[in-house]
Amino acid sequence: MEKIVKVALDAMGGDNAPGEIVKGAVDAVNENSNIKVYLVGKSPRIHEELKKYRYKSEQVEVVNAEEEISCDESPVEAIRKKKDSSMVVGMKMVKDQTADAFVSAGSSGAILVGGQFVVGRIKGVKRAPLAALMPTTKGVSLIIDSGANMDAKPEYLLEFAKMGSIYMEDVVGVRKPKVAIVNVGVEEAKGNTLVKDTFPLLKECSDINFTGSIEARDIHSGQADVVVCDAFVGNVILKLSEGLSSTLMSIVKDGMMQSLRGKIGGLLVKPSLKKTLKRFDASEHGGAPLLGLNGLVVKMHGSSKAKETKNAIIQCIAFSEAKINEKIKEQIVKEK
Amino acid sequence: MEKIVKVALDAMGGDNAPGEIVKGAVDAVNENSNIKVYLVGKSPRIHEELKKYRYKSEQVEVVNAEEEISCDESPVEAIRKKKDSSMVVGMKMVKDQTADAFVSAGSSGAILVGGQFVVGRIKGVKRAPLAALMPTTKGVSLIIDSGANMDAKPEYLLEFAKMGSIYMEDVVGVRKPKVAIVNVGVEEAKGNTLVKDTFPLLKECSDINFTGSIEARDIHSGQADVVVCDAFVGNVILKLSEGLSSTLMSIVKDGMMQSLRGKIGGLLVKPSLKKTLKRFDASEHGGAPLLGLNGLVVKMHGSSKAKETKNAIIQCIAFSEAKINEKIKEQIVKEK
Repeated sequence: MEKIVKVALDAMGGDNAPGEIVKGAVDAVNENSNIKVYLVGKSPRIHEELKKYRYKSEQVEVVNAEEEISCDESPVEAIRKKKDSSMVVGMKMVKDQTADAFVSAGSSGAILVGGQFVVGRIKGVKRAPLAALMPTTKGVSLIIDSGANMDAKPEYLLEFAKMGSIYMEDVVGVRKPKVAIVNVGVEEAKGNTLVKDTFPLLKECSDINFTGSIEARDIHSGQADVVVCDAFVGNVILKLSEGLSSTLMSIVKDGMMQSLRGKIGGLLVKPSLKKTLKRFDASEHGGAPLLGLNGLVVKMHGSSKAKETKNAIIQCIAFSEAKINEKIKEQIVKEK
Repeated sequence: MEKIVKVALDAMGGDNAPGEIVKGAVDAVNENSNIKVYLVGKSPRIHEELKKYRYKSEQVEVVNAEEEISCDESPVEAIRKKKDSSMVVGMKMVKDQTADAFVSAGSSGAILVGGQFVVGRIKGVKRAPLAALMPTTKGVSLIIDSGANMDAKPEYLLEFAKMGSIYMEDVVGVRKPKVAIVNVGVEEAKGNTLVKDTFPLLKECSDINFTGSIEARDIHSGQADVVVCDAFVGNVILKLSEGLSSTLMSIVKDGMMQSLRGKIGGLLVKPSLKKTLKRFDASEHGGAPLLGLNGLVVKMHGSSKAKETKNAIIQCIAFSEAKINEKIKEQIVKEK
């Protein structure tokens, strides 16, 4: 019998909680029998949603948590004070090893803080980066750090490069992933102080396949598998991509609607356009894990619906099988 | 009689020099009789190109410069040593007020260094930012600093915000331009140290219409007229936009070509698609000026052709009429 992967899911987090989140959990267990989901949050609300669906009862369990953490509150305060929130309760289950993973679409800040302070970093790991997969013309690339640690230091970026390589090799299956650092030009002398100081560390590191600098214009064509940057830049890369894709698509649609010719053509190209866009849709790629913690914490987009939730839960199997954390301990912590 | 705007043009800079650059100069003077272009570079090569066209001889003058600066050399060394390069000769013409503006598609690094050291900053201005216009659904927004000063300080970003406001108001014609700072969230407590330290300076500044933080996903929808950021982030914003636009458009085209239905539809939507793309084409918006210098220096994209060259030259009239530098002196330097 295969191992059952146990996922604690924040039933109260995100714009569409609990309805879409609970639905995603049911869809996940119905699709894969090797998953057990703990739905963490206000028990009566969760049971109300669960009543709508059919599923194997042994695959879903409700864990009551009375409090909720909103996006408006200070993440540090919220994690410290709201001990009975769905987020803190769910993360403690990972810490105690009752669950293998915690998945949430709630406050990004609280997930990041809770990951570091409730679940905790692997001893020896300096910072836990957020690692988001981004669609490219060649497949996917990992943007690391995509939002966790503002004001990074060169030694953090070096760790991110190593963790990102392990992730792309073992979870995504890219052999010898190409690692590049985001820069304003490809010459070694270019960049801000952080990038200039990080470059030699990456160049000297024999654990990774470092290919040099990557300019932002080459990220979407998939020139690197692991795209290393500080969290501020990573956040700009992800959010700009999201905003520009939807802006371009809406103006293309509007442009077509301005003439009869365009309208007819638009109807004809719709299926292929949809297929293309689907491949470039970040929601297809599940959540973004925080790497380097004593357990798995996965951040979903705040606007996640059932589909994204299901994908993020199922993704936890791949994480669990790949034993990322054991590899991070072996490859990163051993050197200390 | 209207004032003649005199533009020194780097005939040797860029991927398509001197052919396309010289053609752009001829197109500009043929379109507008209030321009005089000094073509700076190797005189025989320039004359060879000029022979191909008809134009009023009093509007074009060749200024010989024997050396060239390539993108591979150190900008600081090149500007210091190559006194007879098209770039240094052209910039000196601005310094001496022989020309009102210098326009180049050559080495970005050398333009930035030359701007600061050959033309020089207005006394009292701390740093000269590169200010690039970016197409949005509402028109254009200014990304400032889009590439000149790595490792910015809060007081530089404050100056950029003021100069950007003057530019958008007086050159582009936006009344009370909305100024926002690029951030990872809209709450005031978010951001890296630079952004957190800059935020209160912008908030307190009565010369600008500061609207708070802008997330990267909202830049292309035109939520702010002046988008303030450090040069590393600004470079990422511009280059990612460039790369993603072309990636998306090529995969949309490829997607259409995979079925007969899509091919026919593609032919029908082509005109409207082209029109839409043209509006989002950065080359339509001319070059990016370095603000805060003792004269105008405009950086064009390295891949610029005749059209971009012509637009950048003609744009110099608007700059000249708006008297940006006088206003920067009045509004920024007076306070010191």
